[in-house]
Amino acid sequence: MRLGRIARAATLALALVGAGLGGGGAAAEDLIVQKKTFEMPSFTTQGGRTIKNVKIGWESYGALNADRSNAILVTHFFSGTSHAAGKYAPGDKTPGYWDAIIGPGKAIDTNKFFVIASDTLVNLNTGDPKVVTTGPASIDPDTGKPYGLNFPVVSFRDFVEVQKALVESLGISKLHAVAGASMGALQAYEWAADYPDKVGRLMAVIGAADSGAWGIAWLDVWASPIRVDPKWNNGDYYGKEPPTEGLKQALKVVSLHANHWLWAEKTFGRAWAEEGKDPAAAIGNRYKIEQGLEQSATARAAVSDANHFLYLVKANQLFMAAQGERLKAIKAPTLILYSPTDQVFDQSFVKATADIIRSGGAPVETGEIGGNFGHLNGVVAMAPLSDKVRGFMEK
Amino acid sequence: MRLGRIARAATLALALVGAGLGGGGAAAEDLIVQKKTFEMPSFTTQGGRTIKNVKIGWESYGALNADRSNAILVTHFFSGTSHAAGKYAPGDKTPGYWDAIIGPGKAIDTNKFFVIASDTLVNLNTGDPKVVTTGPASIDPDTGKPYGLNFPVVSFRDFVEVQKALVESLGISKLHAVAGASMGALQAYEWAADYPDKVGRLMAVIGAADSGAWGIAWLDVWASPIRVDPKWNNGDYYGKEPPTEGLKQALKVVSLHANHWLWAEKTFGRAWAEEGKDPAAAIGNRYKIEQGLEQSATARAAVSDANHFLYLVKANQLFMAAQGERLKAIKAPTLILYSPTDQVFDQSFVKATADIIRSGGAPVETGEIGGNFGHLNGVVAMAPLSDKVRGFMEK
Repeated sequence: MRLGRIARAATLALALVGAGLGGGGAAAEDLIVQKKTFEMPSFTTQGGRTIKNVKIGWESYGALNADRSNAILVTHFFSGTSHAAGKYAPGDKTPGYWDAIIGPGKAIDTNKFFVIASDTLVNLNTGDPKVVTTGPASIDPDTGKPYGLNFPVVSFRDFVEVQKALVESLGISKLHAVAGASMGALQAYEWAADYPDKVGRLMAVIGAADSGAWGIAWLDVWASPIRVDPKWNNGDYYGKEPPTEGLKQALKVVSLHANHWLWAEKTFGRAWAEEGKDPAAAIGNRYKIEQGLEQSATARAAVSDANHFLYLVKANQLFMAAQGERLKAIKAPTLILYSPTDQVFDQSFVKATADIIRSGGAPVETGEIGGNFGHLNGVVAMAPLSDKVRGFMEK
Repeated sequence: MRLGRIARAATLALALVGAGLGGGGAAAEDLIVQKKTFEMPSFTTQGGRTIKNVKIGWESYGALNADRSNAILVTHFFSGTSHAAGKYAPGDKTPGYWDAIIGPGKAIDTNKFFVIASDTLVNLNTGDPKVVTTGPASIDPDTGKPYGLNFPVVSFRDFVEVQKALVESLGISKLHAVAGASMGALQAYEWAADYPDKVGRLMAVIGAADSGAWGIAWLDVWASPIRVDPKWNNGDYYGKEPPTEGLKQALKVVSLHANHWLWAEKTFGRAWAEEGKDPAAAIGNRYKIEQGLEQSATARAAVSDANHFLYLVKANQLFMAAQGERLKAIKAPTLILYSPTDQVFDQSFVKATADIIRSGGAPVETGEIGGNFGHLNGVVAMAPLSDKVRGFMEK
């Protein structure tokens, strides 16, 4: 889960500061990065629909070596972007989400590796000027209007195919590794199962391949508030008032689900939202944690798109409905890192995934991520895993 | 969590049948019960507001003994009612929710005990003809119109006070035990802490006293879809079209949260909602579990009230915000039964609650409930705990 720039200020920052985690270092160490755009004149989905003029954003850190063998692809989480490391300008408040483990001399050492991070199709953050994506909010060149729900369903296999085209456009035929957190881990599994000969290593963080019906249903619960909002209007809201309230509540569910009670209690406790407004005194008086989640979700909703949320839900559901058994095709040595307090992907699902990959013959190493943030530990609490990640990438 | 009569048919029945659980026995054994109404001309809440003409429904099983010392009060869960055991007529499809452990010769033996089960204030099921409650949907005698959000905030202490008045109206000054599941367990804790000399035993099933900020936030997530629905209209919808869509989605969250992946996978798997409608083919094509939860929630929403949902959320939040420390006042020997797969009250919260009560000096016994239904195991999978419950009640 990405907690966007403003949202981060609203809630996670409190938690990060409280926990002594902050990512990034002194300005002198900052990696300065640029957003680039990859374009395909035409892309045909697994479902057989052709989309014209597909664009995704990407960033890279480090340099590609002469034989083009040192590239690591980083795939992002549900509400994430291609901003995995570094800053766009020295004054940026926060760096990319995995800056703690990607950079010069860091666990994924950009002095050695060429790291590519790309936006997915149907990326959530359509209102973020640094995000480039193609989805329901994009203009259909054939009609001159946004696709809305006419945009085809896309799957992680489609995400992978677009990423593969990007990677190939750089002259890279085999990746040293694919790595990602949460939905990024799911894409990494997809890559390694679809192209076993093109993925040298697989690093899957806080993601499981086989959460099945349970995962499908929770994704539907995440999306439900959007459908309740009449402004969603069956996906037809471009140029009108968007379903901000529904999207906000959807983002709130995701934020809470991805976190943990240790964070909730430490960050908010049982404090009231407003001094003098006892929640016992009026039905509308609320607790600080309700207000905090609401403020964070409000900021995120302002730069997100409701239809893109629904398309991401669909892509995740399709992945969860597929049998994990197909992961037996994976050949890459695999590192699976999980958070024992993860409420989104219970560790039992992660361990089952490791077992499936092992049963296909690939070596699988696992490791636990600590921290107070449940699922989000895999995004915000990765620094202590640095040696393990470095060892895996450089072995 | 109660899965209402129709809802039960829609989803849980499948699961129950599949798991070989079904409650109830042959018709010859059926306990036939009646709904009764308890009325108070006036009740003043903890917040100091007076409600006129308060009514709650109740049922009883077994007979009160001569010295009125054999009464057990059963308090219900969030979406439950006072129908804890028996059938209203021999032809009823399903008996009360704890029929597996309440009845003649059963764990809570109605040949020995006089069991009272009561509806709470602001009970959710206002459209169920067998439920009697007072809340926002009730007519305010002063205005002749439904209270709506003018109804005062009520807490579990208020629930307890009304139940206490009911119990006292029967000439009972001390209860042999108070027992309940989920929100029923929370009320039971409340009873035993508020009136340590009036509660002989405390049986708390799938409930914890100290889930704090996390519990408060999840309750807010449950309620959110109601507030997104413009038909909710700030609680003013009586005589107009009610916010059924928001309420439905709220009930869906509760149903899923209260269940477990073992149930999800076994009952629905990754099947499609409709044959020939591949979820990969269109954004609107869904999975069977999405459809199942939707159908169940639709049936439940038809007999539930959105404002009552919000008032129940508030009462639960107030309980969760209170420090568990006050449970040290409990004197009653306590039996705490929990489900290790519970997603609503993690077992760590339940164990912390047991420790708090123990530290106050009361003896606390605990026990695990098995089954495939997560939190709901405490409602639908109690039969195997019969010996433990009987031993505790008859000791």
